Amino acid sequence: MEIAVGDLEKINANSLYQTLGIQLKKASQGKARSSLHPRSEVCWPFSTQPHGGVLFTLLDTTMAWAIFSELPEGSNCTTIHLSIQYPAPATSEVFQCETHIQHRTGRLCFVNGKIVGLDQELVATGEAVFRIIQTPPIF
Amino acid sequence: MEIAVGDLEKINANSLYQTLGIQLKKASQGKARSSLHPRSEVCWPFSTQPHGGVLFTLLDTTMAWAIFSELPEGSNCTTIHLSIQYPAPATSEVFQCETHIQHRTGRLCFVNGKIVGLDQELVATGEAVFRIIQTPPIF
Amino acid sequence: MEIAVGDLEKINANSLYQTLGIQLKKASQGKARSSLHPRSEVCWPFSTQPHGGVLFTLLDTTMAWAIFSELPEGSNCTTIHLSIQYPAPATSEVFQCETHIQHRTGRLCFVNGKIVGLDQELVATGEAVFRIIQTPPIF
Amino acid sequence: MEIAVGDLEKINANSLYQTLGIQLKKASQGKARSSLHPRSEVCWPFSTQPHGGVLFTLLDTTMAWAIFSELPEGSNCTTIHLSIQYPAPATSEVFQCETHIQHRTGRLCFVNGKIVGLDQELVATGEAVFRIIQTPPIF
Repeated sequence: MEIAVGDLEKINANSLYQTLGIQLKKASQGKARSSLHPRSEVCWPFSTQPHGGVLFTLLDTTMAWAIFSELPEGSNCTTIHLSIQYPAPATSEVFQCETHIQHRTGRLCFVNGKIVGLDQELVATGEAVFRIIQTPPIF
Repeated sequence: MEIAVGDLEKINANSLYQTLGIQLKKASQGKARSSLHPRSEVCWPFSTQPHGGVLFTLLDTTMAWAIFSELPEGSNCTTIHLSIQYPAPATSEVFQCETHIQHRTGRLCFVNGKIVGLDQELVATGEAVFRIIQTPPIF
Repeated sequence: MEIAVGDLEKINANSLYQTLGIQLKKASQGKARSSLHPRSEVCWPFSTQPHGGVLFTLLDTTMAWAIFSELPEGSNCTTIHLSIQYPAPATSEVFQCETHIQHRTGRLCFVNGKIVGLDQELVATGEAVFRIIQTPPIF
Repeated sequence: MEIAVGDLEKINANSLYQTLGIQLKKASQGKARSSLHPRSEVCWPFSTQPHGGVLFTLLDTTMAWAIFSELPEGSNCTTIHLSIQYPAPATSEVFQCETHIQHRTGRLCFVNGKIVGLDQELVATGEAVFRIIQTPPIF
């Protein structure tokens, strides 16, 4: 299901994204792109860095959008497994995340992605398996 | 460094925990225990479940406390890698997380942990490697 | 499907196990146990240690037996994902591997396991997701 | 340390590679490439496919060569963690593996890689963290 540009504003208004500082930028043809301007509340224990769990959430949700962009209407996906690595401290003020599908079968989808800071330094990289489910999404 | 019971209140007042609904219960001798009463804002896209990233954050931070409970003063730790699996939907109203150190060398620490719902159903399990660093913690 | 003691000899005669030095000891009720006496050919690049891939194979195949012990006849399983960690050098002459199912749904099985040396030192730990398939096994 | 073309023959004569059917093709500037013609002994339990542990070994060792190609003489590396995914059955007769360094710090190296069959279908993908050590390699 292609995510229209006009849908982005509504999607990005969700409470999770607002709480953390996430914005979906694009999701199309098995790829997705998003940004994180971390809210100060989620920069802990280091006040200059979002918690690693915030980066994980950015990666996971952006992977889901990559998958979602290729699913038929009425389908959805849920994470089975995600492995994340943190090569460097996440000291940037803003982060970009890019994800893409590596392989999709009927019920499973293999995805990977990465997060870079303003200077393009790699701060997180990950790979995941999602399950395709028939529960309609709420957005 | 043993986490005294009297320190828990101050630790749990941090902005990340307050935003997500996390509470550290105990951290001692390489083990830690915490709970999650997910705030409604972070229950998205399914309003009955915290986002997987919130469970990840619970697991990751509880692993860090397990390590921290064994570190000398002035040391800290940072996640290198974490692999998380989600065996079942996280539909409970409250979750318990338990973590423990599996092995520690001079500079690395191997940890695992799990999260269960009220009925003890396993909703997340993970294993991680942390790096021991000399940056003092802020709490 | 319970693995009878009388089946072990036939199972352990397979070419992969003979090549690496693996022996299944027991598989019952979602748990399995095996050993590795690494053949010298697979101790490389360090002649005193089996390659990490040999330990991985031990872990993966022992996880499969844990699952297999609970499957109906005619079913089989295949690895979707496995995350392995190596806390310490594998310098033992013999290794023991233990695995157990953490959760099973209709089509997926979540398993974890660990490998210890003679002195019980932890040399590998891992968690995995397997897919249940209908291809009959060859053994 | 650049791997000279003249070194490949000696490297590929090692007992592990001969036992499994691995050949290093190139390792230079943080990238490496290898192939697998799986020996029939390690195609079990499906006689048309190398065991997943053989693919893991191919990926892990090819990652190590990518790192090794950038290390100073006398240094070596050892796997701390590797997460592998298997998107599709490995039914090819020959496989190609490619790996590259994502980030290197003083003591850690983050790498990823993938394995494809003859038709370029993705059969395995992974990411890993290696530790840089001072033990000289034996080859």
